[in-house]
Amino acid sequence: MTRINDNYLKLQAGYLFPEIARRVKAFAADNPEAQIIKLGIGDVTEPLPAACTEAMRAAVDELSRRETFRGYMDDSQGHEWLREAIATNDFQSRGCDIAADEIFVSDGSKCDSANILDILGSDIRIAVTDPVYPVYVDTNVMAGHTDAANDRGEYGGILYLPATAENNFTPPLPTEPVDVVYLCYPNNPTGTVATKETLAGWVDWAKANDALILFDAAYEAFITTPGIPHSIYEIDGARDCAIEFRSFSKNAGFTGVRCALTVVPKSLTGKSAGGEDIPLHGLWSRR
Amino acid sequence: MTRINDNYLKLQAGYLFPEIARRVKAFAADNPEAQIIKLGIGDVTEPLPAACTEAMRAAVDELSRRETFRGYMDDSQGHEWLREAIATNDFQSRGCDIAADEIFVSDGSKCDSANILDILGSDIRIAVTDPVYPVYVDTNVMAGHTDAANDRGEYGGILYLPATAENNFTPPLPTEPVDVVYLCYPNNPTGTVATKETLAGWVDWAKANDALILFDAAYEAFITTPGIPHSIYEIDGARDCAIEFRSFSKNAGFTGVRCALTVVPKSLTGKSAGGEDIPLHGLWSRR
Repeated sequence: MTRINDNYLKLQAGYLFPEIARRVKAFAADNPEAQIIKLGIGDVTEPLPAACTEAMRAAVDELSRRETFRGYMDDSQGHEWLREAIATNDFQSRGCDIAADEIFVSDGSKCDSANILDILGSDIRIAVTDPVYPVYVDTNVMAGHTDAANDRGEYGGILYLPATAENNFTPPLPTEPVDVVYLCYPNNPTGTVATKETLAGWVDWAKANDALILFDAAYEAFITTPGIPHSIYEIDGARDCAIEFRSFSKNAGFTGVRCALTVVPKSLTGKSAGGEDIPLHGLWSRR
Repeated sequence: MTRINDNYLKLQAGYLFPEIARRVKAFAADNPEAQIIKLGIGDVTEPLPAACTEAMRAAVDELSRRETFRGYMDDSQGHEWLREAIATNDFQSRGCDIAADEIFVSDGSKCDSANILDILGSDIRIAVTDPVYPVYVDTNVMAGHTDAANDRGEYGGILYLPATAENNFTPPLPTEPVDVVYLCYPNNPTGTVATKETLAGWVDWAKANDALILFDAAYEAFITTPGIPHSIYEIDGARDCAIEFRSFSKNAGFTGVRCALTVVPKSLTGKSAGGEDIPLHGLWSRR
């Protein structure tokens, strides 16, 4: 038979969420009186807000009439009017120098954060904050960027940056060489936010170490404290070292209806084997 | 900077569709009186049929009321009621032994046919019929399954199976070892269909040669001749050697609105480095 990608066999059978479900079920069976607050995988309990469903109905109306029907987009980045609105309202309004043609609309941040690895080298070393959204780790395992897991479930080759009470859940900068670091603020799962100073420290570190930041801003709509950045691009220099993921599922109130976007600035480059600086925007456009 | 996936640099600048657009534009400029029938990349001119828009409106209504709202699915394969309907109406009704839990609903066949390579080994050799939908080739280039292109645009390492007037646009079986073959029937771009005998020949070949068939049935709704298979699974033994891609964009009349599915039978396996038979269904479920 055709050979499989053996890296998948390194994935641990006890994937986090099924394991949580198993333990919750067992605990609930042993403690039928217990009132359990579930903090594992989320699901939605409320219907979509009227602003979303009204826009969806208007879109269906558009698609049902020849005069207003929209077919394929000009390119695979998403309709231009949508990307223009995102650039203006989500980025430029906060002082971020991000243009519509640097925005790629997609069917979800989970897919984007997995697919982004396709355009990177096969021999990269990644760092994650710990605890971490499992998708970042598992997709790197699948891509062959790690060794097998140890008995604590940590994969060889990944640099884990602990978020602990001692460091106020603000993981330290890497002190070993890594090529890519995943940051998620507001953080899944700890809920912490990053100050402008913390993010500026990351951008300085990335630029000094030729590293790439994959910044997951899926939960930015939940930031209420003034002065906390909503985007990595609020930091000077981030255009040259960071890709940002956003999710409308979390931010616009249509959880379960998949829509997201990824920002790949045109000034962001990676190195080819020949030592050339290659814009990642062009590679991601081909994907 | 972080290393890039150098395989992307093998992709040819003159990707087929932009090149067609360039030549059409130049021809039209030189021949302003010419009435041009465009056979390059398609776009849609007609609005969605009422059956589709009414179902979409009903779905938006469901999402707008707490009593009927549906959140995340139980798994990433798509809602069970949808997969049951597909299994019954698209497969079992034609005698195909395909169950709902072998169906994975997605946002498009293009993505699926690219992503499927993630679960396969990195050293596989592929065969394509020629001419061919460029996505099959380009995604294998990106995945590192090929060498550079020659001056005819053919990539080293890929086995091209010519569809010519001499062979009635029915490409021959491979006579060299390959691990994966892409078949698309009804064919994009030639429009030919495959008879039951032709497909049975492919299934026999795949089983005899431990090869995997990636069968693209995106255009099956356009088959009108009785006796022409709509699915590879109408052929005995295909469950053990074939993955099938389907697209609602082409079949259900909502082109431009992305919806598709991939069938990965539970009986289909690949070989691990250790020589074990690993079900591809389990690997694809993790992706």
